Amino acid sequence: MRLHGFFRSSAAWRVRIALGLKGLSYDYVSHRLLQGEQRAPQYLALNPQGLVPALELDDGQVLTQSLAICEYLDEAYPDPPLLPADPLGRATVRSLAQVVACDIHPVQNLKILQRLRENGLAEDAVQAWARTTIEEGLAAYEQRIVRTAGRFSFGDTPTIADIVLIPQLGNARRFGAALEWPRALAVEAACQALPAFAAAEPLAQPDAPPPKG
Amino acid sequence: MRLHGFFRSSAAWRVRIALGLKGLSYDYVSHRLLQGEQRAPQYLALNPQGLVPALELDDGQVLTQSLAICEYLDEAYPDPPLLPADPLGRATVRSLAQVVACDIHPVQNLKILQRLRENGLAEDAVQAWARTTIEEGLAAYEQRIVRTAGRFSFGDTPTIADIVLIPQLGNARRFGAALEWPRALAVEAACQALPAFAAAEPLAQPDAPPPKG
Repeated sequence: MRLHGFFRSSAAWRVRIALGLKGLSYDYVSHRLLQGEQRAPQYLALNPQGLVPALELDDGQVLTQSLAICEYLDEAYPDPPLLPADPLGRATVRSLAQVVACDIHPVQNLKILQRLRENGLAEDAVQAWARTTIEEGLAAYEQRIVRTAGRFSFGDTPTIADIVLIPQLGNARRFGAALEWPRALAVEAACQALPAFAAAEPLAQPDAPPPKG
Repeated sequence: MRLHGFFRSSAAWRVRIALGLKGLSYDYVSHRLLQGEQRAPQYLALNPQGLVPALELDDGQVLTQSLAICEYLDEAYPDPPLLPADPLGRATVRSLAQVVACDIHPVQNLKILQRLRENGLAEDAVQAWARTTIEEGLAAYEQRIVRTAGRFSFGDTPTIADIVLIPQLGNARRFGAALEWPRALAVEAACQALPAFAAAEPLAQPDAPPPKG
């Protein structure tokens, strides 16, 4: 398999975690988003949306959209499961994932913030937009997991909910958002203790800038 | 079952279609979004995010996030299926659905447009923001379904992809977006011929304004 991503893309980060949890090895192709490499003709031929991530399977099939890719990996490689077994539990985990993937991330990603600047918003208003979006969304997530969390967002094993939560917490730090979410932060600590999550961190990727020193 | 929605919410519209395709009857509770009724304490107790839709099951469990609800309905009531049987087909349908549910709708919904106004954007810039978002997203959707569509977005039976496409085309018309998507419009025509899609239309809901005349 070949993952098309970028070290700082939080959608690609999700897929890296899922691949790691499934114990799958893959080649990594970096597309530097700030240089617009995701819109190069060669990549658009793979993914007409010009977004990362995309997962190329060994037979040449290309999967796009990070949550769809995670669900594919869960169906094609069932062990360990990334969703509970019962429909109600699965709906709960998917709903948590979508709080982040539908209500937070699309409203604060690189592309949207750039459009806000193009519409004349000053940089402090752009940064406030991102922070507010993240804080409102994570507040809802925190409130939701009161009823569902064990060591992880849902019970005691990592699920797709954690896979989207962790990169979003990374974005929260980047934008200086409040981090007053004790349950989410406890889940994050439990995740970071797992090799699959640690290996998926942006700064652990080959296209990350070298550490300062 | 009890669906909490609003006639014009495209996320609630998705769930109405899914319920209809599954042949499920339900009670309908309307929350007038423009009056902020989705943030009333009684509703926040059900759904802390203060968003529609939410689906209350007969045992009192509450499901949120429209795609999670649709997947729940597909797992709890498998006939007719709303996803293909094979993992690759399922990934393709989910990816199509997420083009709309992650990359279009969250960037053009009521809440975001209101935030743009609060950030000083003039009304024509707000409308252009919505139109551009929809047009770019539907262009990608149209290009994707070249390879997958039969009568519907994926093959010859309706899937979750169609369930999100149809309300998005409704939004495209509301915002005066270009409708230069022959395949998507052919899929829409096939959907509209089905009773489940017709019954889910916003203006067919009890909380829609009465027809003018």
